[in-house]
Amino acid sequence: MKLATLRTTRPDGQLVVVSADLTRCVSAGRIAPSLQSALDDWETAAPALGELARQLDAGEITGQPFEPRSVAAPLPRAFQWIDGSAYMSHLERVRALKGSLDEGLQSVRPLLYQGASDSLSSATAPITVPGDDLALDFEAEVGVIIGPVPMGAAYWQAAEAIRLVTILNDVSLRRLVADDLQHGFGFFHSKPSTSFAPVVVTPESLGKAWSGNRLHLPLRVEVNGALYGQPNAGVGMHFDFADLIVEAARTRNLAAGTIIGGGTVSNPHDQTLPIRADGIGFGCIAEARTAEKAKFGRSRTPFLKPGDKVRIRAMDGAGKSTFGDIEQVVALASN
Amino acid sequence: MKLATLRTTRPDGQLVVVSADLTRCVSAGRIAPSLQSALDDWETAAPALGELARQLDAGEITGQPFEPRSVAAPLPRAFQWIDGSAYMSHLERVRALKGSLDEGLQSVRPLLYQGASDSLSSATAPITVPGDDLALDFEAEVGVIIGPVPMGAAYWQAAEAIRLVTILNDVSLRRLVADDLQHGFGFFHSKPSTSFAPVVVTPESLGKAWSGNRLHLPLRVEVNGALYGQPNAGVGMHFDFADLIVEAARTRNLAAGTIIGGGTVSNPHDQTLPIRADGIGFGCIAEARTAEKAKFGRSRTPFLKPGDKVRIRAMDGAGKSTFGDIEQVVALASN
Repeated sequence: MKLATLRTTRPDGQLVVVSADLTRCVSAGRIAPSLQSALDDWETAAPALGELARQLDAGEITGQPFEPRSVAAPLPRAFQWIDGSAYMSHLERVRALKGSLDEGLQSVRPLLYQGASDSLSSATAPITVPGDDLALDFEAEVGVIIGPVPMGAAYWQAAEAIRLVTILNDVSLRRLVADDLQHGFGFFHSKPSTSFAPVVVTPESLGKAWSGNRLHLPLRVEVNGALYGQPNAGVGMHFDFADLIVEAARTRNLAAGTIIGGGTVSNPHDQTLPIRADGIGFGCIAEARTAEKAKFGRSRTPFLKPGDKVRIRAMDGAGKSTFGDIEQVVALASN
Repeated sequence: MKLATLRTTRPDGQLVVVSADLTRCVSAGRIAPSLQSALDDWETAAPALGELARQLDAGEITGQPFEPRSVAAPLPRAFQWIDGSAYMSHLERVRALKGSLDEGLQSVRPLLYQGASDSLSSATAPITVPGDDLALDFEAEVGVIIGPVPMGAAYWQAAEAIRLVTILNDVSLRRLVADDLQHGFGFFHSKPSTSFAPVVVTPESLGKAWSGNRLHLPLRVEVNGALYGQPNAGVGMHFDFADLIVEAARTRNLAAGTIIGGGTVSNPHDQTLPIRADGIGFGCIAEARTAEKAKFGRSRTPFLKPGDKVRIRAMDGAGKSTFGDIEQVVALASN
């Protein structure tokens, strides 16, 4: 089952069921007005949404054309957005850059931070930044949306709470990261609005692409049309999503609708940019720059500037975009 | 106008208007089902809620008895909870303890962190902790709930966005703070569910107690019935709430319903515990312990343990509790 949220005048938008091939959709308003309300009542809503999806895919309902440009983020505003850092090769590459102090612990307990969840961006919203000198970066990630998880949850409880899977762009202002980390109070200014793929998918509907609480698909990243990376999200994910949830629930309950990110997808290799069509490359610019610095003594790949285009998608075995594409242009804030 | 949220089977509860003397309330369901929905449509909802409040206070509506034990947090779940640190004497007292690296910048730009907002505690919910060795502390704070604020907002825009004022207990697990800060990723594990007073109040209804975007009332704190502190929230607040909002909106928009905290209320003095009835004392245990360490060479005030009771209230000139009392007992999690 695939779900999306159409933009409306209401801040939570309108929940729709999307066909497996992402061409058509149908309102789920009779079942739940919004994705959050479906998550609040998942035991009742999920079977009804699943039946609607079956009818749509079987052609019993025509629905309407699904237009990725008409959607909001699946949860346009969420009660919680927690991002982890599960790929060790990402942490290894960016550690020096970030000034983080986490080396000893990072492979024993996953790092997590509390992200801003009050206004999450749609897949095609511009990335709006307050200045062009902030070292703007993208981070291609996998995320899950969960049901309620009690404090001190066991691994199996965490795994069972995973309701939906998607991909996201954890937009980062690298110039502000070191300052934020120096304060020790988290990525407050350096992580503006996070962007999400048009569609969320239940783990069951992902088939073999979902196993071991990991997504086993490459995330293909292009910048201005050039291939930047296609690391496989199932490779090198040291902590799986259930591990991340267990860690997040150590001292508190997690409410339904909490989004958990796995951190920048990153596979170990010694490539630099540009990569070939069969290369792995990178899920963020910071990794490319540190790889270049190690190899050539200096970074040469620039950060994003106004007008640049980023595209991120998860590719299935047939070359289809599983969650729809994140396709964003960088824009300067007008005020 | 005073508002509260009654606990119901719905996760966002039921919005009620509360009488100025906190004795009676009336459902605001005809105007807005929840506080968040009122904030989403404040220009329409606020005048209607204000008229209901007028009728209730004039006795034109009887309403029902207001029972603080029947309420949830004003926003039982919020889309954003940002806590600042606006009182320099708090930062000075706890700096060594926290291992924070912020000394140079702390008085130039306010420190902010992203708190968990997915499950906020009511005024009388137990403080449930996963262990009794985590150095459990309270923090008596003032908080505001705001309307939408654009990225890069000016001071006047920030001030105008303040919709509601209340007090809160920013529960802290001190033993985990240093570890969280060492990671540099924020107070993830050390700040479990924050607790809120039963009632939120519009700035206009606070009269002289609200000026300069600060609350000018003492916050009276008792632990197991003994006076612990009564620092005035209007004294020593180096950054006011509009300053905190401006800082929070540096790189991103803030959505309606965002809660901003001012940090532990703290007034400069050289007292230690116990204080006399006319003493100022402390808004958290960490400050009392560092004051003791400076004076006696060691801390002697213990952190909270299961069964301990904390009461926090803002006292007006007539000795009335403006927002109702936060009254919590410490409990160990059962799992």
